[in-house]
Amino acid sequence: MAQPTFEELIEVKRDGGTHSVAEMDAIILGYACREVPDYQMAAWLMAAYLQGLDADETVALTDAMVRSGSVLDLSSIPGVKVDKHSTGGVADTTTLVLAPLVAACGVPVAKMSGRGLGHTGGTLDKLESIPGFRIELSTEEFVAQVRDVGLAVIAQSPDVDPADKMMYALRDVTATVPSIPLIVGSIISKKVAGGADAILLDVKVGSGAFMHTEDAARELALELTRVGKASGKEVHCVLSDMDQPLGMAVGNALEVREAIETLAGDGPEALTELCVDLGARMLVLGKVATDEEQAERRIAQAIADGSALEKFARWIEAQGGDPRIAETPSLLGLSPHVREVTFRDSGFVKHFDTESIGRAAMRLGAGRERKEDAIDPGAGLVLDVRVGERVDSGDRIATMYAASEELLDTAEELLVASIEMGDSAPARQPLLREV
Amino acid sequence: MAQPTFEELIEVKRDGGTHSVAEMDAIILGYACREVPDYQMAAWLMAAYLQGLDADETVALTDAMVRSGSVLDLSSIPGVKVDKHSTGGVADTTTLVLAPLVAACGVPVAKMSGRGLGHTGGTLDKLESIPGFRIELSTEEFVAQVRDVGLAVIAQSPDVDPADKMMYALRDVTATVPSIPLIVGSIISKKVAGGADAILLDVKVGSGAFMHTEDAARELALELTRVGKASGKEVHCVLSDMDQPLGMAVGNALEVREAIETLAGDGPEALTELCVDLGARMLVLGKVATDEEQAERRIAQAIADGSALEKFARWIEAQGGDPRIAETPSLLGLSPHVREVTFRDSGFVKHFDTESIGRAAMRLGAGRERKEDAIDPGAGLVLDVRVGERVDSGDRIATMYAASEELLDTAEELLVASIEMGDSAPARQPLLREV
Repeated sequence: MAQPTFEELIEVKRDGGTHSVAEMDAIILGYACREVPDYQMAAWLMAAYLQGLDADETVALTDAMVRSGSVLDLSSIPGVKVDKHSTGGVADTTTLVLAPLVAACGVPVAKMSGRGLGHTGGTLDKLESIPGFRIELSTEEFVAQVRDVGLAVIAQSPDVDPADKMMYALRDVTATVPSIPLIVGSIISKKVAGGADAILLDVKVGSGAFMHTEDAARELALELTRVGKASGKEVHCVLSDMDQPLGMAVGNALEVREAIETLAGDGPEALTELCVDLGARMLVLGKVATDEEQAERRIAQAIADGSALEKFARWIEAQGGDPRIAETPSLLGLSPHVREVTFRDSGFVKHFDTESIGRAAMRLGAGRERKEDAIDPGAGLVLDVRVGERVDSGDRIATMYAASEELLDTAEELLVASIEMGDSAPARQPLLREV
Repeated sequence: MAQPTFEELIEVKRDGGTHSVAEMDAIILGYACREVPDYQMAAWLMAAYLQGLDADETVALTDAMVRSGSVLDLSSIPGVKVDKHSTGGVADTTTLVLAPLVAACGVPVAKMSGRGLGHTGGTLDKLESIPGFRIELSTEEFVAQVRDVGLAVIAQSPDVDPADKMMYALRDVTATVPSIPLIVGSIISKKVAGGADAILLDVKVGSGAFMHTEDAARELALELTRVGKASGKEVHCVLSDMDQPLGMAVGNALEVREAIETLAGDGPEALTELCVDLGARMLVLGKVATDEEQAERRIAQAIADGSALEKFARWIEAQGGDPRIAETPSLLGLSPHVREVTFRDSGFVKHFDTESIGRAAMRLGAGRERKEDAIDPGAGLVLDVRVGERVDSGDRIATMYAASEELLDTAEELLVASIEMGDSAPARQPLLREV
């Protein structure tokens, strides 16, 4: 048969048909090498969004995306390379904590990360709030640092999974982001191309997450696991709560400060709990612990004996940042205008609209609405309460940091409106919803 | 509420929602003024294709398309201006016959027409096979010619319905053409913007038409009528057969020759029958006849007394062509390489794959596969048989004309394969399927 045209490939998906592996290659690799224009890919993406991709198509999509660029070779690094991916959320500082924590326990961490958009912050933006920190290393520098220091976190290399970068940018402006097969292809292809041997996936569920319901999050988790395994990787997936911010800090320098506190054993409860749990799972995946109980003890020890914080300092220094922040987090400057926001009524904190808290932080300058927006590294907010707490009128909700009083004004109403009060304490949600 | 972003508008349609009039304006006018990029419009078009547009949305779409450009003012031309639209087919020479025919009977014809693409020929391409014929007139020249001569047929003005031109070009490459609401919006908006008072719609059904089944054609016809009336126009719609080519000639100069023969009373039966029927309906719509019987007599008289052919000559002359072709059609040159194709078996002609006959003519040089392809005005084929005829091996199927023997070779197999033979005569299909 003659090579089908791209219009014919769009027709197949439009009419609910199934793509062969060769067709999926033609679509993804054709787009990645810019033979297929954006408008044709946009039509295919919408057809794929509405008609879906089946199990085999999702594996073929992922595989084609991996082959759109180069695959990192981490074989010169001894040990099982474990990568972690969270589906995004508010105040999710886990990468900043977990990377040095598991590295201190002997699991090498070679991680490529992305920037944040909208109400979820990106790990790179947080790291860039550390003066001097370099997020771009050559592949050689990257691999050498993981070998020498035990970890490195850098920006996605343009050679790795270029299809994902192009498709994500297009999906972002064509209302085709929340599609499970497309999300799975994006996440797994990046991890496979990044050279990991094993992958821990943390799927967030709740008002601040991409997946608002547990059913949707579970479906995503199962697909991620299936496709990850089909791509030849060890995969472990957990569902965790994002019905309230994970940490108390939302903002870049603020979250780095909080990560340091957590590594020093002094972090907020939920963030600490999740990091210990995920860290233990990474130790098991990385084969430096035989079971999770043993792994949790190892993690607790790394926090208690200071080796986790020391690993953090070595890592920051290796990438050009000032290692003294590990001992003195206040070296990370905050924005000059500060305002305390207080409760107007008494009662119980019943519900957080976590996404709105993220948006409030974004308005303060901590996030970007559009790719070209600049970020104020010192802006953000630190919450004082969690869901279920009894509060009185006048108690503090949060402290906000911004470059001007006007920014504080625009964020304050949004922050206050994001909290729903009640007459009694709501049932407590477990942090780890499912494994 | 704040103005929704285009991503939000795509989301509405993606999720099966309904657009308000204001939203439809934002989509269509935003695209027409190039604020909305092609890739976003492509995603919306695919969402609209798969989720559909409801009755009100289709009217709003059509209205927004009309307002994307200027609307022709034909009020200085006396009489009811009747426009005709066919949904495209093979050997559909009706416009070339009907325009002078009804003009000779007193109905002014002010028509803007398009080029052909794929297996269906365009009226403009046919007219351009007449040496000297100008398809571009200013609006003033166009209106003046209709007033003075009674008819003019020109290319779509770029100022009229620019949204349709842009959307059609995009749909053509994103597999979003065969959507009834989008087709209806395209057809009716062009006719309304072209200034017609009444519209006759000829929806083709069969193997050579856009709509292969009668159900699909009927659905399209009903929607065209409904939206045309909602746009304030008198609308009359017929379904006509395209299970075999309408005329015997497929090609540009060949079809002009055939139109002249038909105007002289010497055309093929089916083409003549359809032109008399459609012409009569246009006379009634144009209020120069009170009923169709009277109108058919008037049409027959214009053919018999030579006034239709005379009107044709005056029209061609007014637009710069050589009027002597009306008396001597052989002045229109044909391509130099000629081949007769004959039947290999005896039997009955059971079925034509009309689309393949169109494609065979395209390969001879009569049509274009892509917009930038050039056309050979003298290329094409003239059929010798119709469905139901008894033929013997060696009888002629058709005579083909092309610029080279190679072109004749590539078309011959396709032509032969397009004919299905049988042992008995198939039931005869009426030409006019439904009114």
